[in-house]
Amino acid sequence: FGGQPPTASDPMWGSFTAIAGQDGEVDAEELQRCLTQSGFTGSYTPFSLDTCRIMIAMLDRDMTGKMGFNEFKELFVALNGWKQNFMLFDHDRSGTIEPQEMSQAISTMGYRITPQALNAIMKRYNKGGRIYFDDYLACCIKLQALTDSFRRRDTMLQGSVTFQYDDFILCTMAI
Amino acid sequence: FGGQPPTASDPMWGSFTAIAGQDGEVDAEELQRCLTQSGFTGSYTPFSLDTCRIMIAMLDRDMTGKMGFNEFKELFVALNGWKQNFMLFDHDRSGTIEPQEMSQAISTMGYRITPQALNAIMKRYNKGGRIYFDDYLACCIKLQALTDSFRRRDTMLQGSVTFQYDDFILCTMAI
Ligand SMILES: [Ca+2]
Ligand SMILES: [Ca+2]
Ligand SMILES: [Ca+2]
Repeated sequence: FGGQPPTASDPMWGSFTAIAGQDGEVDAEELQRCLTQSGFTGSYTPFSLDTCRIMIAMLDRDMTGKMGFNEFKELFVALNGWKQNFMLFDHDRSGTIEPQEMSQAISTMGYRITPQALNAIMKRYNKGGRIYFDDYLACCIKLQALTDSFRRRDTMLQGSVTFQYDDFILCTMAI
Repeated sequence: FGGQPPTASDPMWGSFTAIAGQDGEVDAEELQRCLTQSGFTGSYTPFSLDTCRIMIAMLDRDMTGKMGFNEFKELFVALNGWKQNFMLFDHDRSGTIEPQEMSQAISTMGYRITPQALNAIMKRYNKGGRIYFDDYLACCIKLQALTDSFRRRDTMLQGSVTFQYDDFILCTMAI
């Protein structure tokens, strides 16, 4: 008795409340500030806001566009997983993923895509020919979400899916 | 005779060379700096890098990820068109697009999407419930590109398209 609410003893509660501010939830811009300050990009540029939005969209089950404490903790677990994954494929330790490394990352993660699709992905996510961590994250999360959407609909495992227009837009515009 | 190359007399040539720098082409980050400085966002935040990449991807026919002078001029024509379009739908002159305005913009532009898809779009592109110009641009260009991809494949006008996995990823990851 006389104990504090369970969250108060959680080591992440302090950071969460500091980042969340008055409304007690973390939105994409608050997350961006936090990830920029913690040096997660590996460069001096701000952490991509777009990546923050995509990450929140993936975890935001109650559809508010913001994260409560549990979603925030899940996100940090996922983020650390992706950081490990990124370092695993950054063979030359350049701090960025180059085309050859990206090709290997994508196929090791189990995606079967053509060189043309790989080329389109490199073009979309590179800065000066290299992919930085925040863009890598956006790219991987998007590829995963799109592949999941596709597989859920490909119930006959035929490698092809018929989309109605509205369903296609919903799948592709939401992330 | 004794004339200058045609581009030298073009009023936009000076800005282009200043922005393009040494390599004579404008990449996404150079475009971002230029659009941020020219106050195109309507706010004090940097113009979205993601939007710059999407715009370049749309115009970049030679697939270099950068723009030459002609592509750069086309982009400014398109950008001014979108600014007009944005102001047209910003009925209350708030400088941002609110959900009601977005719903009208999307249907006036001829897209037929469900309230669920509209809701997903608002969630993805809003900041504090409003859509700023740079995010509006990314959203509209993406919606247009995805709709075009869909229609090109819907040759029988059935409102449904069968995608192979690789084609689906190529269509959706490139922008
Ligand atoms: Ca590397
Ligand atoms: Ca340049
Ligand atoms: Ca408005």
